[in-house]
Amino acid sequence: MGKILVNDQFISREEGSIDIEDRGYQFGDGVYEVIRVYGGKMFTGKEHLTRLFESSKKILLELPFTQEELTAKLQELMEMNKLHTGTIYLQVTRGAAPRQHQFPGQSKPVLTAYTKEVGRPEEGMNKGMTATVADDVRWLRCDIKSLNLLGNLLAKQEAMANGSFEAILHRDGTVTEGSSSNVFIIKDNQLHTHPATNLILNGITRRVILQLCNEIGLTYKEEAFSVEELYAADEVFMASTTAEIMPLVQVRDVPVGDGKPGEWTKKLQVAFKGAIQQQCGELVGAEE
Amino acid sequence: MGKILVNDQFISREEGSIDIEDRGYQFGDGVYEVIRVYGGKMFTGKEHLTRLFESSKKILLELPFTQEELTAKLQELMEMNKLHTGTIYLQVTRGAAPRQHQFPGQSKPVLTAYTKEVGRPEEGMNKGMTATVADDVRWLRCDIKSLNLLGNLLAKQEAMANGSFEAILHRDGTVTEGSSSNVFIIKDNQLHTHPATNLILNGITRRVILQLCNEIGLTYKEEAFSVEELYAADEVFMASTTAEIMPLVQVRDVPVGDGKPGEWTKKLQVAFKGAIQQQCGELVGAEE
Repeated sequence: MGKILVNDQFISREEGSIDIEDRGYQFGDGVYEVIRVYGGKMFTGKEHLTRLFESSKKILLELPFTQEELTAKLQELMEMNKLHTGTIYLQVTRGAAPRQHQFPGQSKPVLTAYTKEVGRPEEGMNKGMTATVADDVRWLRCDIKSLNLLGNLLAKQEAMANGSFEAILHRDGTVTEGSSSNVFIIKDNQLHTHPATNLILNGITRRVILQLCNEIGLTYKEEAFSVEELYAADEVFMASTTAEIMPLVQVRDVPVGDGKPGEWTKKLQVAFKGAIQQQCGELVGAEE
Repeated sequence: MGKILVNDQFISREEGSIDIEDRGYQFGDGVYEVIRVYGGKMFTGKEHLTRLFESSKKILLELPFTQEELTAKLQELMEMNKLHTGTIYLQVTRGAAPRQHQFPGQSKPVLTAYTKEVGRPEEGMNKGMTATVADDVRWLRCDIKSLNLLGNLLAKQEAMANGSFEAILHRDGTVTEGSSSNVFIIKDNQLHTHPATNLILNGITRRVILQLCNEIGLTYKEEAFSVEELYAADEVFMASTTAEIMPLVQVRDVPVGDGKPGEWTKKLQVAFKGAIQQQCGELVGAEE
């Protein structure tokens, strides 16, 4: 893991400890981001950090640094650790204070960040993965990328226990998103995905995909679809920072289309790779 | 704060740190309890620890100790710190592991516990407090006493910012509970409180109160009531481990009844004090 960043200090992994009364530990009182790095360069780093500040604002957490300062620190961390292709994880909590629900008058937010080498999930992107379907029991502020992730974890755990890669969540039959991804279907040459309301996280990869739809001539609708529509789709895929555009070729025991990644999904993958190369340069040795 | 308990070690407060990749810190992946202590003795300690084990089971977290072992450790902590009247806070997380949503194959749960002197909130219990009303945006597993508390925090913060003690939460007009308490109304000599479903935490104080209703001859219904019924109630109170039975004499800008703690509420307070004395002995010096 190399060095980690705690507040404005670069320290060794072993020194990375936080107080038992950090509000992140007792309440999940904080926000986070995961940024993809390809060939030593952040992909959509600006969008991720802008969202971090937006999430913070939504929980009334004032960050003690500017976006420019944070960007510079993360850049330094990445270079220090010679990160080639992987992720930067970062989170900010409201910091340590005697435990009480209301926000403390004084507490110093705590930033932790580290890097990890993670290749592109080529195999899954080529072959496609499987998904389960589960009730979305999460809170009604999924637009905030917060540390309250127990609902997501339980859904993911159930999916993995069933041999699936992802859990597609629904509220009363309406698909919202995946447990750690956005979900898209393609039906009759049109892409559908849940609108960016309080019920989903507006993924950065999701936003790039919608731009790419225009590029490749695929019309899209930001409209919610049902579980029935999910099963009847021509193509299904999920998208996230680490999984990129991941075809889902089976939902529960139902094959999607002919059980292989669909044509539009593959076109989007190619366009997405192009977007990465445009920002980060040629992808050398970035495979899993 | 004296000594704290981390796993099975009693250490000084200053040594109390946890790993940055503890799943409690990154996901809120853990459960907790707050136990009241009067005159050096735990009140309903057994019920609290039973619930801790139930919460753990619901998130598939296997605790590495028995309830008896945990009870003995907390007892030792309490004596070590000469706790007279106050609280024991304890939480257990799934422990540290490389960050991924699915549960790690191997991780050692981390227990942290500490004590705090806190008097009984006599003044509030005598005069009554005020409450606001807010949307319940929390997840649909409020029956689990988990570390995912951001929804609760935001509601409490808004209440406190408005000069209120508690936020009474509702889903589409149906009152569920307070941001850190259960809520009760009395109308026409009958007590109403939300049933113990997935939408509320089945408070230990709540359970004691329902038993006491029988003792004092107050009929009760575990049935949800609306915000309108809340405003029209003869008496309103909230209950929690630290706030005990706390009369709410004003909800938003509407006085409850004649704006003073109601007669049934006062009878329940007397009966509750009796229950404490029965378990913990005479209450000497336990006031705020």
